[in-house]
Amino acid sequence: MARMTRRIVLAAPIEGAPKRADFRLEETALPDALREGQALVRTLYASADPGTRSRLSAGASYAPPLKPGETIDGFCVGEVTESANPRFAPGDLVALGGGWAEHVLFSGRGYMQKIPHRRVPLSAWIGALGVPGMTAWFGLKRVAEMKPGARVLVTSAAGPVGATAGQVAKAWGAERVVGVAGGAEKCAWLRDVGFDAAIDYKAEADLGAALKAASPEGYDIVFDNVGPAMLDAAIPLTRMNARVVISGQVADYNTPAGAAPGLHTTRYFIANRLRMEGLVVFDDLRGFAEAQDALCALIESGAVQTREVRSAGLESLPNAFIGLFNGQDFGRRIAAIGAEP
Amino acid sequence: MARMTRRIVLAAPIEGAPKRADFRLEETALPDALREGQALVRTLYASADPGTRSRLSAGASYAPPLKPGETIDGFCVGEVTESANPRFAPGDLVALGGGWAEHVLFSGRGYMQKIPHRRVPLSAWIGALGVPGMTAWFGLKRVAEMKPGARVLVTSAAGPVGATAGQVAKAWGAERVVGVAGGAEKCAWLRDVGFDAAIDYKAEADLGAALKAASPEGYDIVFDNVGPAMLDAAIPLTRMNARVVISGQVADYNTPAGAAPGLHTTRYFIANRLRMEGLVVFDDLRGFAEAQDALCALIESGAVQTREVRSAGLESLPNAFIGLFNGQDFGRRIAAIGAEP
Repeated sequence: MARMTRRIVLAAPIEGAPKRADFRLEETALPDALREGQALVRTLYASADPGTRSRLSAGASYAPPLKPGETIDGFCVGEVTESANPRFAPGDLVALGGGWAEHVLFSGRGYMQKIPHRRVPLSAWIGALGVPGMTAWFGLKRVAEMKPGARVLVTSAAGPVGATAGQVAKAWGAERVVGVAGGAEKCAWLRDVGFDAAIDYKAEADLGAALKAASPEGYDIVFDNVGPAMLDAAIPLTRMNARVVISGQVADYNTPAGAAPGLHTTRYFIANRLRMEGLVVFDDLRGFAEAQDALCALIESGAVQTREVRSAGLESLPNAFIGLFNGQDFGRRIAAIGAEP
Repeated sequence: MARMTRRIVLAAPIEGAPKRADFRLEETALPDALREGQALVRTLYASADPGTRSRLSAGASYAPPLKPGETIDGFCVGEVTESANPRFAPGDLVALGGGWAEHVLFSGRGYMQKIPHRRVPLSAWIGALGVPGMTAWFGLKRVAEMKPGARVLVTSAAGPVGATAGQVAKAWGAERVVGVAGGAEKCAWLRDVGFDAAIDYKAEADLGAALKAASPEGYDIVFDNVGPAMLDAAIPLTRMNARVVISGQVADYNTPAGAAPGLHTTRYFIANRLRMEGLVVFDDLRGFAEAQDALCALIESGAVQTREVRSAGLESLPNAFIGLFNGQDFGRRIAAIGAEP
């Protein structure tokens, strides 16, 4: 009798904003025995990630699209229950990109890391210590080459990447950290956690003027998670040799190619010697352990605060994902799926 | 009795495409005696540069605008006739950013370099060996960090920057160099001088498809002189870790901010780890002499060919400049102003 598990798959390629019917819960069989290198992981927590959106449309042009019937992407914290991989043993706590499933069969290749301690809540390993936090860290460190005294602008600043980026920048000696977010509640939270200024873009008739007022001497770093409209407001305010980090382009994800507003400020790249660069944080995998140690210390000291929106059960993930795009809540979307050991 | 010279000044800030009435020829007095550091230069050749356009409109946002009555920017080859500067002596041949004038008073500061030999025509020192050629050189070398085997796309490829960039890339071992230009004549010339393929964007219904056909494996370097519409066709074809060099954005110069098409392909920056960076070549001034030596050898060997559109007299410069934007001719616009010694 086959062992069964449950997972959530793509029902059909998505157009526009995601909706509940785009997702389907199904039962699938787990293998009776593991092949060499494999490990079986029981999921404790799984995340809903905005970056997943780009893989859910047919012909999505920048990452291979998911096919109907494939498990939806998501990061997981789990417990190894069986292992045919010498790096992992039953009982190990791990973080991996396992997807929306109650059990994940790790192939032996790709990202799965052991969680070395329980000094912070386990779900942090798919939040501030996971891909969002590492994206913030290496976006600032490797791509922006941030130096103390920098003036830093972060868009989508109340999200897990942006909030970590802004607080880490402060911890590294930024002269000024300004966040852009949608809504008064998000902005109040950003100020609470140490942003020097927070701008509610929905309340500003002239975003450029608000950005300028928040940092009259301009910006050395623009850490962007949104897209061209936000960049167009920020780029004219960049200082010489500024860096623009393209971490996410969430404004684009639900929009057909070409329909979103474009970037009109490329001319500034010349006079201001701007460099704009995208990152995929798995390029920095070898630096994760050291970065996680340092960031964990910042979390323990309170210098970096995190916010989670937690839901219960695998079935809660589609709505958590849909909620990412309506902007009503904010923080890392985590579903608690299995009991912690 | 004051010594007089002639120069061309901005009559009034320009809107849209430049026209003859935007420029005014006037006589001005030269000083009777030079102050320490100054040198007086008799202009032999002066250039009309597309980059100048951005300074001729009121409120031009990316470089300080010229005021009415100020001399129009341009590069000059000249002969030093008087000097109170220990670095220059009467009889020296020099290249500098002197503007459209029959005599230029060099202040002692900023860019003026001695021309070390006459192995190539003097006008090359404000062409392939001047700012256009140095922009091509350092755009490829410092910004794009070009390596042998690279696949290179150059836009506005028949212009002095683009033509030099493409030919230098070939000389440095590019696997494939593709140029985009407007018109069959320009494309024929590009193929003549060694581009592997030349695409007439005016004749292509689907520029992206033409770019893909010209280099099916994509592009490691996009050397752009045009602007977002061209970039949007090229960016989806970039290879992993590709570099986009923003050397000029000529499509923008005659267009009010925001009216030109925007860049819609910022999402590719993430998955392809793109880096887009602008350059102002004066940052590389210390490397000019070495680069000019190497580029001069490429010109002498025929590996880099140049094309000039030459006119006679200071008065010819406004029309030469206007002609830059109607795309009917191509090559470096040079006015011969004084006789070579």
